[in-house]
Amino acid sequence: MSFTATKTADGTTTIEADPKVPLIRMTRDFRATPAQIVRAHTDPEIFVQWIGPDDSNVRLDHWDARTGGSWRYVTGDEGHGFHGSFHEIRDDRLVQTFTYEGYPDGVSLETMWFEDLGNGTTRMHATSLVDSFEARDAMLASGMEVGVNDGYAKLDRLLADGAV
Amino acid sequence: MSFTATKTADGTTTIEADPKVPLIRMTRDFRATPAQIVRAHTDPEIFVQWIGPDDSNVRLDHWDARTGGSWRYVTGDEGHGFHGSFHEIRDDRLVQTFTYEGYPDGVSLETMWFEDLGNGTTRMHATSLVDSFEARDAMLASGMEVGVNDGYAKLDRLLADGAV
Repeated sequence: MSFTATKTADGTTTIEADPKVPLIRMTRDFRATPAQIVRAHTDPEIFVQWIGPDDSNVRLDHWDARTGGSWRYVTGDEGHGFHGSFHEIRDDRLVQTFTYEGYPDGVSLETMWFEDLGNGTTRMHATSLVDSFEARDAMLASGMEVGVNDGYAKLDRLLADGAV
Repeated sequence: MSFTATKTADGTTTIEADPKVPLIRMTRDFRATPAQIVRAHTDPEIFVQWIGPDDSNVRLDHWDARTGGSWRYVTGDEGHGFHGSFHEIRDDRLVQTFTYEGYPDGVSLETMWFEDLGNGTTRMHATSLVDSFEARDAMLASGMEVGVNDGYAKLDRLLADGAV
């Protein structure tokens, strides 16, 4: 299962289902350094400006972005909650857990690695691991690519504006 | 791949490789309530008395046992380090991340659910999820069953002594 195939700076995110394990792989290039992409995922003031679909209104409930810290945010008028833990934050790698509170028993393990391609370009390699193919395929069928693509397009604009 | 088949109170832990996903499943019965088994995994004074093989000497470096908290401990004279985050702690469920620092890029997502069988007996259902079958099989081949069985035998004795 593969939704898109383009991989260009300022382009669409590649979202693919791993054929062997219940994992989603995402790849995307940014006109930024790895440090900027880590900052975009950890600085609360920047994070709320880009995460989620265009119509989302993200309010952080808790944010402690360090190895061993945790986070919670709420989106939209309905107040959908999401929470997780920062397992590890490095200069070029971020590992965290993720739960959508509408499905409170579901937990994914999210790993992001930021590859410096030089010339101010960074390739993000992200994986979301869950414990069954059914859960993974439900995530893919949920329309997640809208939030991912809208969100990273907002991040592209923040980067272009020098806001990160 | 299955190491043992017995499932009795005060008995051996069943440790099995899932056939479809890179997951290890463990099941074990305890003469205890779910609340006691949660306490055994979250109370630092109790935890250090049973975790790991018989010859282990566990020193907690950091311990914040709450949803969104984290932990780190060191074992043995060599000082092997382990760390993770508590994604969620409920009355009958515990979800955490786990890294052995000798293999710092490896992260497993550990879920434990404690089923009340009545008559003061609780069945633990535990899973360890990793992102490849190679990593899962390396965990199984590492001799993990020694630490698991030694540790839970120590916990059985603590429970019998009324120490939990």
